[in-house]
Amino acid sequence: MHSTDRARRHFSSDNWSGVHPEVLAALAKVNSGHVPSYGHDTYTASTIARLREHFGDRAEIFFVFSGTGANVLGLQTLALPFNTVICAETAHIYTSECGAAEKHVGCKLSPVPTRDGKIDRDGIAKHLHDFGNDHHVQPSAVSISQATEYGTVYSPDEIRIISGFAHEHGLKLHMDGARLANAAANLGVSLREISGDAGVDVLSFGGTKNGMIAGEAVVFFDPELATNFPYRRMQGMQLSSKMRFIAAQFDALLDNDLWLKSASHANRMASKLAAGLDSIAGIQLTQQVQANEVFAILPREHIAALQELSSFQVWTESISEARFVTSFDTTEDDVTTFIDRARAIIAG
Amino acid sequence: MHSTDRARRHFSSDNWSGVHPEVLAALAKVNSGHVPSYGHDTYTASTIARLREHFGDRAEIFFVFSGTGANVLGLQTLALPFNTVICAETAHIYTSECGAAEKHVGCKLSPVPTRDGKIDRDGIAKHLHDFGNDHHVQPSAVSISQATEYGTVYSPDEIRIISGFAHEHGLKLHMDGARLANAAANLGVSLREISGDAGVDVLSFGGTKNGMIAGEAVVFFDPELATNFPYRRMQGMQLSSKMRFIAAQFDALLDNDLWLKSASHANRMASKLAAGLDSIAGIQLTQQVQANEVFAILPREHIAALQELSSFQVWTESISEARFVTSFDTTEDDVTTFIDRARAIIAG
Amino acid sequence: MHSTDRARRHFSSDNWSGVHPEVLAALAKVNSGHVPSYGHDTYTASTIARLREHFGDRAEIFFVFSGTGANVLGLQTLALPFNTVICAETAHIYTSECGAAEKHVGCKLSPVPTRDGKIDRDGIAKHLHDFGNDHHVQPSAVSISQATEYGTVYSPDEIRIISGFAHEHGLKLHMDGARLANAAANLGVSLREISGDAGVDVLSFGGTKNGMIAGEAVVFFDPELATNFPYRRMQGMQLSSKMRFIAAQFDALLDNDLWLKSASHANRMASKLAAGLDSIAGIQLTQQVQANEVFAILPREHIAALQELSSFQVWTESISEARFVTSFDTTEDDVTTFIDRARAIIAG
Amino acid sequence: MHSTDRARRHFSSDNWSGVHPEVLAALAKVNSGHVPSYGHDTYTASTIARLREHFGDRAEIFFVFSGTGANVLGLQTLALPFNTVICAETAHIYTSECGAAEKHVGCKLSPVPTRDGKIDRDGIAKHLHDFGNDHHVQPSAVSISQATEYGTVYSPDEIRIISGFAHEHGLKLHMDGARLANAAANLGVSLREISGDAGVDVLSFGGTKNGMIAGEAVVFFDPELATNFPYRRMQGMQLSSKMRFIAAQFDALLDNDLWLKSASHANRMASKLAAGLDSIAGIQLTQQVQANEVFAILPREHIAALQELSSFQVWTESISEARFVTSFDTTEDDVTTFIDRARAIIAG
Repeated sequence: MHSTDRARRHFSSDNWSGVHPEVLAALAKVNSGHVPSYGHDTYTASTIARLREHFGDRAEIFFVFSGTGANVLGLQTLALPFNTVICAETAHIYTSECGAAEKHVGCKLSPVPTRDGKIDRDGIAKHLHDFGNDHHVQPSAVSISQATEYGTVYSPDEIRIISGFAHEHGLKLHMDGARLANAAANLGVSLREISGDAGVDVLSFGGTKNGMIAGEAVVFFDPELATNFPYRRMQGMQLSSKMRFIAAQFDALLDNDLWLKSASHANRMASKLAAGLDSIAGIQLTQQVQANEVFAILPREHIAALQELSSFQVWTESISEARFVTSFDTTEDDVTTFIDRARAIIAG
Repeated sequence: MHSTDRARRHFSSDNWSGVHPEVLAALAKVNSGHVPSYGHDTYTASTIARLREHFGDRAEIFFVFSGTGANVLGLQTLALPFNTVICAETAHIYTSECGAAEKHVGCKLSPVPTRDGKIDRDGIAKHLHDFGNDHHVQPSAVSISQATEYGTVYSPDEIRIISGFAHEHGLKLHMDGARLANAAANLGVSLREISGDAGVDVLSFGGTKNGMIAGEAVVFFDPELATNFPYRRMQGMQLSSKMRFIAAQFDALLDNDLWLKSASHANRMASKLAAGLDSIAGIQLTQQVQANEVFAILPREHIAALQELSSFQVWTESISEARFVTSFDTTEDDVTTFIDRARAIIAG
Repeated sequence: MHSTDRARRHFSSDNWSGVHPEVLAALAKVNSGHVPSYGHDTYTASTIARLREHFGDRAEIFFVFSGTGANVLGLQTLALPFNTVICAETAHIYTSECGAAEKHVGCKLSPVPTRDGKIDRDGIAKHLHDFGNDHHVQPSAVSISQATEYGTVYSPDEIRIISGFAHEHGLKLHMDGARLANAAANLGVSLREISGDAGVDVLSFGGTKNGMIAGEAVVFFDPELATNFPYRRMQGMQLSSKMRFIAAQFDALLDNDLWLKSASHANRMASKLAAGLDSIAGIQLTQQVQANEVFAILPREHIAALQELSSFQVWTESISEARFVTSFDTTEDDVTTFIDRARAIIAG
Repeated sequence: MHSTDRARRHFSSDNWSGVHPEVLAALAKVNSGHVPSYGHDTYTASTIARLREHFGDRAEIFFVFSGTGANVLGLQTLALPFNTVICAETAHIYTSECGAAEKHVGCKLSPVPTRDGKIDRDGIAKHLHDFGNDHHVQPSAVSISQATEYGTVYSPDEIRIISGFAHEHGLKLHMDGARLANAAANLGVSLREISGDAGVDVLSFGGTKNGMIAGEAVVFFDPELATNFPYRRMQGMQLSSKMRFIAAQFDALLDNDLWLKSASHANRMASKLAAGLDSIAGIQLTQQVQANEVFAILPREHIAALQELSSFQVWTESISEARFVTSFDTTEDDVTTFIDRARAIIAG
C-alpha cells in the first residue's frame, strides 16, 4: 500500500507531504552564530510580533512542537481535573490523540454527536447541567476544530454563536486550528475573524499541515490565560531549545502570505478532486468540501485498486467511506490522473 | 547581556548554537514527495537501522522532539506512580525540567547529593530501604546523566557498577544521554560501551545539543520495556508527524561519524578553554573537564565585564561559579580571544 | 425538601440511611487495646478470611474507604493512561464520580449507550477497534455495574458472555458492585456466582449502601493484579489506619448473612413500592425492578407534593422520571403510607 | 513482635489505639432515620459550626477520610503541577504517603534538611530561587507539620515568622495538623493560635490519631482557596456518603474539650515515658518531648527484648534510634511497667 517511489504524492494526509521549499530555505537564514535558547532570541520575538499582526496586539503567542502539544497545553489553561471540556465526538482531541487530554489535563472530555464534525449550541447545551453538583464534572470549556476533521468549516457567525453561548455559561472557547489556514482560505477571511474576533479564547494555530516541518503556535486572545504558560510548556515537554528554527518556519509562512497561498491551493485541489469523484458513478460524497479534505463512499470492491493509484485512508470501514486529503504540493495532474484512472477502474 | 550580533558565538550553552550545515543539508535530501507520516516511512526505518549498528540489534529506538520528552517517556516505562527514581540532586530531570517527571510519571524523584554530578553505589544505597512498606515509594530505577550536568563522565566500569547494583536490587538503569556523544568522545569508546553494554536499560540519546535542530532518540536495550512506547509517545505529545525530518538529522550525524567529530571538537574547545582559564590568576576551575563544559569560580567583580566578551551562565551565584559550554561550532579563535581579553580584564 | 425530622426515612438513596444496629455494635467488639495499624491486625486478617469463603480462596481482598476509591484503585490495576475502559454511559464511574477515573487512572472512559444500565457484547464491540494504532486509546478493560445504576441486574450468563468476550480480546472485566448484595439477593445466587465465577477480574464490593458507615472491599479474582495494590491504596488515600473498624463492619455483614437479609429486605421493599406506584394512574414504571431501586415517570405537577411525603431524586428532569431507593431500614409502613398518600395526591 | 493479646497497649503509634468510648457512643446518637448524604445533613452543618468556634467564622471546613487525603487535597488548592511545595525532609507528605502528593498534585516537593522535624526561614529560603525561570518548578507553598513527625512543636511565633516569610514571597502556608491537638495542649494555646491566627492558609486537622475511627478536617482560613474543594474532594475519593458519622466523631471530640483532654493526657504519658527512659543508663533521648512522641537511642542488643514488652518502632536503624508514641488510652501503669522492666533488661 505504501509507495516505494518517494517522489510520488498521495491523498493520505497533509502530513504525508514534505516541507515547502520556502520554509526549508528559511532555516538557513537563521542558522548563524549563537542566540539565546528556549525562545529568548530576537528571531522568535520578531516572528511573534508578525503573528500579532494577524491575531491582534493583545494576543500572547507561544511556539510548541506538535498539534497535540498545542491542544493539550492550551486546554490545561481552561480546565482543572474536575472540569470537563465539551467537544465533537469526532474531535481530534477526543479520538486521535491517544487520550492525551485526559492524561495531561486530568479531566473528562464530553462528546457531542455530530454528522459533519461541527457542533452547535444545542449539542453543547446537553452537557450543561449539574453545575455545582460535586458528583459531576463541571463544564469549563468548549473545544471546536476549524476546519473540522470532516473538512467542514464554521462561519464567523457560527463561531460567535458558540462563543457567546459558552461565555454566557462561564465556559471558555478553545479552537483546534490545525487547519485554520484552510478555513480562512475557504471563507476569504483573516485568521483573526474566525478565531479571536469570533470569541475564541485559546487557539492551536497549525503550521505542520501547511508546509512546515514541525511547529504550532498556541495563541491566547485572553492574555491572563497565558500567565503560567511558560511553565506549562516546559513541563509539558513542548519547549524547543533552538526555538529560532520554529520561528523561522512561521516566518516563511507569513512571507508573501505563503500560508494563504498554500492553503488556498490545497483547498482548490480538494474541490477539484471532489468534483471528479462526484462525477464517477458509484462514488458518493458524504461531506461538504470546504477545506482540503474530501470524504466519499467508494465501491468497496475497488478500494484496493484505487489505493494502488494513491494511498488514502478508509475512514469508516462499515460504509466504505474514504478520506482524501490534499496538500500545498498536490498538483492538478495528481488529481486529474487519479480521477481518470479511478473512473476507468470503477467502470471496470 | 544577549548579543545583538547574530553571527557571534558564546559559551552559554550548546543549544545556543545553530545547526550543523550537514544536518541542514540532510533535510533537503528527504524533502521529496509524500511518505507515510508518524514514522511509518522508509527514511525513519533506515536511520533506525543505522542507529542499531551503534546500539545493538536488539535495541528498540524511537525518535522524539526534546530531551525532556525523551527522559520523561523513558522513565514512564520504568516507574509507576508509587515508585521512585533515584538520581543526582544535580540531574537535569531533578532540577531543570520544571517537574516534568513528577507530573507525567506521577512518581517521586529521590535526590542523591553529589559534588561532581556523578552518583555511586553508596549514594544510591541510601534510598534503598522500605521495600514492601506501603507507606514508602518503592525504588524502581536509577537515572544517571552521561556526560553529567557538571561536564564529568562516568567510565564504563563506573556505569557497570551502578547497573549491577541497581539490577541486583530489582531496579532498572536510565541514562540521560543529552551529551552522550561528548562522553564517548572523551572516553574514546563507542556509544554502546557506555550505555547498553554497561547495563543501561533505557537511554535518552541526544541530538539537539550536538548540532541538530530538534530531535532525540529513546533507546531501549531491553526490548520488552518498549512494548507500549508508541502509545506513550503519542499520548506524551512527542510523536512527530513528519518524522522523516528527525530521521534525516540523525542520518547526517551518523554520516562520516559527524556525531563524533562534532563532540570531539567541542570537547577539545572546552579543554582549551579550561587550560586558558586555569592560567589566569584569580580563576579557579571547580570540576574536571571531561566533556564540553567548564566550571570555574571567577572574580565576582569582573563577571559583568567578562559576560560582555561572551555570554555564559553564572551557575552558583553564592560562590560566583560560572559555567562555560562549547559547541560543534566553537572556534579556536573564540577561545583564544576570550582568554586573552579575560586575562586583560582581570589583570585590570 | 430535606426533612428536619431526623427519625424519618426517605426514598432518596440507600446512603441516606444510617448504620445497621448490628454493624454499630460490632465496632465496640474490636475496640479494645492496641493492634497493628494499616490492616496488619488479626481482625482484618480474619474478616478477609471470612470474605474468602464467599469469593474464593485465591481472591486477594483489600478494604478501602469509599466506592469511588474502590472503583478508581481497581481500575488502576487494569488500565494505563493510554488505555480506555469501556462502560455504560450511565455507569457511576462515568457520570457520578466527578471524573475520578480520568484523573487518577489518567485514561479515557468509553461510554456505551444503554436503556437499562446494562451493556452487552455488541455495545462493547463498537469500541474494539484500532488495536495497535498509536493515535487511539487502547481498550484494556470493560466495567459493568451489578446491580446497575438503574436497578437492573445481570444474570450470571450475561456476565459470562461479557467476560468471555472481553477476555477473548485481551480485556479484563471490572465490576462496580456497590449493590452486589442486592443483585445476589435478587438472583438467589452467591456473591461469587455473579463475580469471580462469572469471569469478573476485579470487583468493588460495596458495604456502605448495605448498612455500613463507610467501607468497601476491592476483590481481585486474579491475584497477580493485586501485586502492587498496597502501594496504590496508600498513595490513593484509601488506606485506613485503624483498619480493624472497617473489618468489624464487614464482619457484622457476614454474621448470620446480615448482608443478604438486608439486601433482600431492601429489594422486597422496592418491589412493593414499584407495585404500589404502578397501581397509581398517571405513574409509569420505566425500568424493571430487580434490586432496591424503582424508576418511574410521575405527573410533573405533583412532584413537589410527593417530595413532601418523602424525599426522592428527580432522575431525568425532561421526562419527569424519578428514582426511588429503598434501604435495609425501609419499612412496609414507609411504603404503604407513601403509596396511599401519593395516590390521594395524584387523584387530586 | 505483634502481640496476640488484643487488650494490651503499645508504644507503636497513636493509630494502634482504638476509639475513645465517647466517640463510639456519639455514633449511635446520630444513627436514626434518613438524612441527606454527602454532607448535606444538619449534623454535619452543626459540627462545622462548632469547629468554626475554634477556627474562626471565616474558616471553610470539610471532612475527609484520612490524613493523607486531607494533606493531598489541601495541597491541591495551593499548587499547580509546575509548582513546588517546600517541606521538611522528614515531613509525612515527603516520606510516608507513598508519593501521594506527587501523583495527585503532580508537583515536586522540595525537602529542607532538619534535625528536629522543624524548618525555618533559612531552610525555606534555599528553595526560593529561579522565580520566573520556566525550567524550574515555581515555589507556591510551604508545608509544616504541627506537631512534627519528631514530636516537636512550633511556637506561635515560629509559625508567624514562617507564614510572614512565605506570604512575602507569594507562597501559601499549609499545615499538616495530624497532631495539632497535641501541639495545642503542649503550648497551652487554642487550636487557632497555632493555625489560622499564626498565618496558616490551609490546615489538615487530625481526628484519627486523637481517638476517632477515621476522619480529618481540611480547614481553609482563606475561604477563596476552598472554592472548588467540593469537586476536589469528590474526585479525590474523600467524600463520605454517610458524612454524619464523621461529624458525630468530631462532635464528641469537641464535647467537654475531649480533644484537649485526650491530647494532654497523651502528652503527659510521653513526658513520663521520656523521663523514665532518660533515667536508664544506656538510653539517650534524641529529641525534645513536646507532644506524644519520644525518640531515644536504645542499646541495640536489647531492642528485641524491649519490643517484647511493648511494640515500638525502630526509627533509625543505623543508630538504633526508636520512636515511642503514646495515646489517649496509654495508662500510667503502661509507662511505669515498661520503664521498670526495660531498666531490668538493660541492667542485665
